[in-house]
Amino acid sequence: MTIAFDGTHYAGWQFQLSGLAVQQCVETALKALFPGSLGVHGCSRTDAGVHALGLVAHADVPREEFRIPIRKLILALNAHLPEDIRVQKVSRCPQDFHAQYQAHSKEYRYQVWNHPGMNPLLIARAWHVAKTLDLVSMRRAAALFVGKKDFRSFACNHDQFIENTVRTLTRCQIQKRGHLLTFVIEGNGFLYKMCRSIVGTLVQVGLGRYTPADVEAMFEKRDRESAGMSAPAEGLTLWKVSYRAESKKELEQSAKNAKLCSTWKGTRE
Amino acid sequence: MTIAFDGTHYAGWQFQLSGLAVQQCVETALKALFPGSLGVHGCSRTDAGVHALGLVAHADVPREEFRIPIRKLILALNAHLPEDIRVQKVSRCPQDFHAQYQAHSKEYRYQVWNHPGMNPLLIARAWHVAKTLDLVSMRRAAALFVGKKDFRSFACNHDQFIENTVRTLTRCQIQKRGHLLTFVIEGNGFLYKMCRSIVGTLVQVGLGRYTPADVEAMFEKRDRESAGMSAPAEGLTLWKVSYRAESKKELEQSAKNAKLCSTWKGTRE
Repeated sequence: MTIAFDGTHYAGWQFQLSGLAVQQCVETALKALFPGSLGVHGCSRTDAGVHALGLVAHADVPREEFRIPIRKLILALNAHLPEDIRVQKVSRCPQDFHAQYQAHSKEYRYQVWNHPGMNPLLIARAWHVAKTLDLVSMRRAAALFVGKKDFRSFACNHDQFIENTVRTLTRCQIQKRGHLLTFVIEGNGFLYKMCRSIVGTLVQVGLGRYTPADVEAMFEKRDRESAGMSAPAEGLTLWKVSYRAESKKELEQSAKNAKLCSTWKGTRE
Repeated sequence: MTIAFDGTHYAGWQFQLSGLAVQQCVETALKALFPGSLGVHGCSRTDAGVHALGLVAHADVPREEFRIPIRKLILALNAHLPEDIRVQKVSRCPQDFHAQYQAHSKEYRYQVWNHPGMNPLLIARAWHVAKTLDLVSMRRAAALFVGKKDFRSFACNHDQFIENTVRTLTRCQIQKRGHLLTFVIEGNGFLYKMCRSIVGTLVQVGLGRYTPADVEAMFEKRDRESAGMSAPAEGLTLWKVSYRAESKKELEQSAKNAKLCSTWKGTRE
């Protein structure tokens, strides 16, 4: 399933004691259609307030309960979901597909509205930064995040005991369209709050608090305290998750086979 | 003033008995700073639920109450406004400037999300059209709206007794970006609900309900009943209002003079 949601009113994707999680809503919807389904596994956690347009999740559904054509599943699932969570795509996948472990890369986008007056149509969608930002310095610093690096300084304290904090970013760009800045961050994996630490640090570069050279030094220090602030959750959206070409090919082949073999019970197309 | 607002919770720009109007909020904010100010005049009405990013409004403020530098007015006004209404720009204008009568052209944008699953980040920002649209036909029909035409068939019934229903559109284009269609409609003036009738009709062309030839016939009939449906308010945004070059030049000159001559009372920069 590819799932989009407005994260404003949720405690994030994953089950939390602190509030309702998106995962919980999707599981409830799935259970309504397939009582024997065994939970939903998402490609990644997202924090409270963070949005998604392309979160991928998988679920195991008993074959005998599969009485609905897959093309009608989007409507059926959405009928059981709140308006701010929408399933956008559903397809069959190979038995061993795992939304998290087989994810090849993820793309996040972060929006900043940079103008003295906030854009009221971007409330809960973008971070409002009123002061003028130096985009040249920000882009110079953004380039420093690309490549295979130790991101320990940009991971939340919780993650300080994680052994491997090396990740590879393939893209860290800042697009400008009028007063709207969009940070496009793509990589093979992300530590807890890593995206928001990168954006927060880059905005502080834009405000003159740090120079690009300071950012290089932050990587050396391997300490969260050395880096900049975390940008607020509401500007962040999990944009797209990509899977390896082989697993995609497998996926399509498997979906094709499923289409050829399956006989729909109960429903006629 | 250039004003942006999320129209979701308002009865439109202009004073209404049916609910709170944006104009009312802006007047209250202005009165808080300038008790002697004489009302706010907007460039156009907008319907309940319609948004704005570039609505222009003017107000007369007594010279003796003008104790705040104009560059600080944005923050001061926004401090007295609800979060979903934001003043984006303030400048001095010539005594005879009128936001409505001197407007040269207006640009509206209308968003349609065209996919079986709604984008939850566009709730109250876009019209959700689940069925596939024929963009080629829609664009062919959209071109028919450009030029000096009698738009009587595309005005709400209220306006049937208006004498002159001839308006000139300079642009009626449909941009596509993924599943998002953006209608860009620009013209010298708009009748009541004209934008929404145009978009509603074009979407019905996309659904196969009308052909571009039917749209030509609608113009001939000069009757609202002959045209297509009105698109819902939430997809529409008043994007930009332009003023004649002379009045803009005057405006800048006047602002310059004001800056040179004025002495701020009470506040030091």
